[in-house]
Amino acid sequence: MTKTPSPRITTGALPGSRKVYHPGVAHPLRVPMREICLSGEAPLTVYDSSGPYTDPGARIAVAEGLPVVRDWLAGRADLEAYPGRAVTEADNGFASGARLTPAFPVKRAPRRARAGAVTQLAAARAGIITPEMEFAAIRENEGRIATRPRDGEAFGAEIPDLVTPEFVRAEIAAGRAIIPANINHPELEPMVIGRAFKVKINANIGNSAVTSSMEEEVEKMVWAIRWGADTVMDLSTGRNIHNIRDWILRNAPVPIGTVPLYQALEKVGGVAEDLSWEIFRDTLIEQAEQGVDYFTIHAGLRLAHIPLTARRVTGIVSRGGSIMAKWCLHHHRESFLYEHFEEICAICRAYDVSFSLGDGLRPGSIADANDAAQFAELATLGELTKIAWAQECQVMIEGPGHVPMHKIKANMEEQIAHCQDAPFYTLGPLTTDIAPGYDHITSAIGAAMIGWFGTAMLCYVTPKEHLGLPDRDDVKTGVITYKLAAHAADLAKGHPGAQARDDALSRARFEFRWEDQFNLGLDPDTARAMHDETLPAEAHKVAHFCSMCGPKFCSMRISQDIRAEAERQAGLAGMAEKFRETGEIYVAAEGAE
Amino acid sequence: MTKTPSPRITTGALPGSRKVYHPGVAHPLRVPMREICLSGEAPLTVYDSSGPYTDPGARIAVAEGLPVVRDWLAGRADLEAYPGRAVTEADNGFASGARLTPAFPVKRAPRRARAGAVTQLAAARAGIITPEMEFAAIRENEGRIATRPRDGEAFGAEIPDLVTPEFVRAEIAAGRAIIPANINHPELEPMVIGRAFKVKINANIGNSAVTSSMEEEVEKMVWAIRWGADTVMDLSTGRNIHNIRDWILRNAPVPIGTVPLYQALEKVGGVAEDLSWEIFRDTLIEQAEQGVDYFTIHAGLRLAHIPLTARRVTGIVSRGGSIMAKWCLHHHRESFLYEHFEEICAICRAYDVSFSLGDGLRPGSIADANDAAQFAELATLGELTKIAWAQECQVMIEGPGHVPMHKIKANMEEQIAHCQDAPFYTLGPLTTDIAPGYDHITSAIGAAMIGWFGTAMLCYVTPKEHLGLPDRDDVKTGVITYKLAAHAADLAKGHPGAQARDDALSRARFEFRWEDQFNLGLDPDTARAMHDETLPAEAHKVAHFCSMCGPKFCSMRISQDIRAEAERQAGLAGMAEKFRETGEIYVAAEGAE
Repeated sequence: MTKTPSPRITTGALPGSRKVYHPGVAHPLRVPMREICLSGEAPLTVYDSSGPYTDPGARIAVAEGLPVVRDWLAGRADLEAYPGRAVTEADNGFASGARLTPAFPVKRAPRRARAGAVTQLAAARAGIITPEMEFAAIRENEGRIATRPRDGEAFGAEIPDLVTPEFVRAEIAAGRAIIPANINHPELEPMVIGRAFKVKINANIGNSAVTSSMEEEVEKMVWAIRWGADTVMDLSTGRNIHNIRDWILRNAPVPIGTVPLYQALEKVGGVAEDLSWEIFRDTLIEQAEQGVDYFTIHAGLRLAHIPLTARRVTGIVSRGGSIMAKWCLHHHRESFLYEHFEEICAICRAYDVSFSLGDGLRPGSIADANDAAQFAELATLGELTKIAWAQECQVMIEGPGHVPMHKIKANMEEQIAHCQDAPFYTLGPLTTDIAPGYDHITSAIGAAMIGWFGTAMLCYVTPKEHLGLPDRDDVKTGVITYKLAAHAADLAKGHPGAQARDDALSRARFEFRWEDQFNLGLDPDTARAMHDETLPAEAHKVAHFCSMCGPKFCSMRISQDIRAEAERQAGLAGMAEKFRETGEIYVAAEGAE
Repeated sequence: MTKTPSPRITTGALPGSRKVYHPGVAHPLRVPMREICLSGEAPLTVYDSSGPYTDPGARIAVAEGLPVVRDWLAGRADLEAYPGRAVTEADNGFASGARLTPAFPVKRAPRRARAGAVTQLAAARAGIITPEMEFAAIRENEGRIATRPRDGEAFGAEIPDLVTPEFVRAEIAAGRAIIPANINHPELEPMVIGRAFKVKINANIGNSAVTSSMEEEVEKMVWAIRWGADTVMDLSTGRNIHNIRDWILRNAPVPIGTVPLYQALEKVGGVAEDLSWEIFRDTLIEQAEQGVDYFTIHAGLRLAHIPLTARRVTGIVSRGGSIMAKWCLHHHRESFLYEHFEEICAICRAYDVSFSLGDGLRPGSIADANDAAQFAELATLGELTKIAWAQECQVMIEGPGHVPMHKIKANMEEQIAHCQDAPFYTLGPLTTDIAPGYDHITSAIGAAMIGWFGTAMLCYVTPKEHLGLPDRDDVKTGVITYKLAAHAADLAKGHPGAQARDDALSRARFEFRWEDQFNLGLDPDTARAMHDETLPAEAHKVAHFCSMCGPKFCSMRISQDIRAEAERQAGLAGMAEKFRETGEIYVAAEGAE
């Protein structure tokens, strides 16, 4: 008997923080949030994608999976449990013996629709506010009940002061938002992706033919959500894909996305030409039964588009895109994904797997940005969006890639125009090609901008992009980098409440509340470590200066002195008024001394 | 006798690169550039700020200083050598004995104007093309002689296909550009800062009361320019300021900037109230004689502006600004910098020290961005610009700070409006406050954008910002991050030639020329190390795949296969044409098989 593995994963509260749960109104929900406890003011509640792993009260047993959150699924009359497809050797890339990752120990019969669509979109159109919608709505408000002054430019996105469940429903019904939530992923804490909501980020994980194991991938998922990943894509490409995915899904409180084509290709020994609709279809069902929440489907890459890539500097850089292009060229046939798209929809609607329509022709270099190939595919993605919507499937659209700053806005505008406001989900984009090793940064620039312009979710890029497989540190760097880019976008959009965290941190900074400053940051551990490197003593964490200027020279301290001095002199605002009236400075104050 | 120190500094060519020198036409010049040697195509010539340190043929002896580049200064009839001001104990913060950094061993009599202005602006207005102008012009072209197609949006900047010395002269004459080049800094390799030229970056170094030594600071300067810093500011604030600066200047091939107020404050024991015009004036002359190329002068912060900061979340965060505010409030007087600005100009014109008019009221948080205090000071900086120009002084203007994305463009527009096109020089700006430890990234987003909009030079921010003093690694990370941001801006502006490096790197990537890909990047060492972490073997550096996908699955390889296949089939472009005509794919090609 194989010993059941028990992967080591990271648990425990984030520094200075505690997990709180907000109740639902229409549904009995426990919506998780993170409260950052501060020494100088009231706690700040922030969005929390980290799941039970950061709740010291939760019992974590990876080999058992997370407890069910969506217990209401069991009561849904439109779903039926059934035995499900049998796992084949091909599902795990013919791994065997010691090379076979053990199956996840707990088996559960999959569910599917008894008939028709069981999607959040179908419910939304029917006027039903699902528990998932209420859950996502409560999360978006981050505990806010009051509105606060806002500025910003949202480029047409209509962002409410407070998100209601009805607003979520209406956005989904309009196709402007999705809740990726497969009915076979009951462990999920539902969340919403759309232009009117907080900008989300995705982290990619996945083993490859070259390296990494199940244990590493489960920990990468837990680690990525700890730092703020809103969804995780499992892009595994080697052996054991089926079993690794099971371990990930059963322990994932966030939506899990995949590119089913990768696994299908493994099943035919990596020979793109040998792919077929039947193998692909079987893979979709396999993954839908497991609970994958969204599928990247490269159905927009048509045979006729391929010649448009001939003069590109970097050809086709999407893995899915290049696989399909090779298949199309070899067979001299239209893509089977395009031809069978209606049937793909029929599967997705039966499990509520959301579409992430892949951009197989996204540019892989500055030179290829916004070219005819890219935009031809985007127009096709617009067609497919309509087909998916007709079948009540949820849809988001993938975008580039590599785009110089002056061409970013056109991407957002073309996407909105072609895809009728379906959420946009972009990879970066990288704004220059000349910094391998720093592509988390070259792409964070583009990501922040396109997020501001309206992209609903940003797929992270790690420092290892173009160079190697990200390790744990790279995953964290990628996630934090994208969290800050998404937040910069929220600020610029005028997202209500976004600035509360900046303001709290700035107040802590001004008042030398070092611990508060660390804990309000996206990465308290790194901030603390950097501070301690120069000024290690505990006493310095309450010092009214820092190592940049030293005690005599601190602008913040001088600024505080100035304020105190000014307040002593009867209040600066009054003095300013007086000055405007009399042209003299502080005359009254002087006289009062 | 004190032993002369010999700081350890980093020398040697950058990977895969060699130093080349381009000659002048009007003047006998040797303008340094870096040639990146490639295995698959012709070498690429790029801008090179690293000085002789990356030239294996150069003799480097830190205690002797760099060889003179601007030998023409010796022949200028408008300059005179004179004994210069005697160094006082106060200049080094009263350091003595073992705590005194030894004086730089080589003494040279300073030069000054015999009369009037000896600035690049005075020459430019007189229609004279100086050697500095020709030097800077040649650098800007990076060896290009032909033009290439450009796109981009330059927001009114008129960027020529090729930079001529006359163009540099005209830009300087118009106040739109500066060449910071003190006549007492003959070691300088001249460079130009302006909206029509490549976006430049500055790195800050400097010891503080808390930590670091002369040896470290000289190495930080050499290290910063190795990775691409175009200018370096010495922001030292502790003891030994005078002597450390001498060591830095005598070894600096790039312009060195300072904030003279910092040293003046040290001279009065750190008590802002004790500052006086006399002490400040003496400090300006001290530093001008040493060869400082630009001074940050916070003369725009007026007494009347201070009340405008009363309701700010983070008050006054500029060190210079807070010192002056404290002085103004204490004495209830107008700033002595503002009142004596004409006299400051008289000093600057006699040595050609450029102004960097400081933004003492720049916002220190998202909450304070673009407020009345900031823009009131900016209007004053506009007044001062006119005064400085009237005295033929060169001027650039410092800008924020912390600004959310939607408020960045207004900063550039206000600056252009108030300061009549004088070059803008910004610190970031940071686009969110919530990521201490990652502020090189929060600010790179803002820096890339404001650089695109027209900022001429970007002051770097390191990961340690707000937390501690940057070490060597932080300096490198800050410089590389800002180089990529500046380059992203150049691309978006449509700077001629900028895309050549992206394209070369992308071609190398597509053709699996790993070594070329590393060497064309901003940080070849890090890129190589990251690649080797996953695939260490030398053989893998010629492999036609990488660790991301593995051998079977590589999109680039598949894409190459597709291209080869398509070319075999008589050319994709022709096929696309055929397809558009007939609606059939590859009919002709099939027939031809």
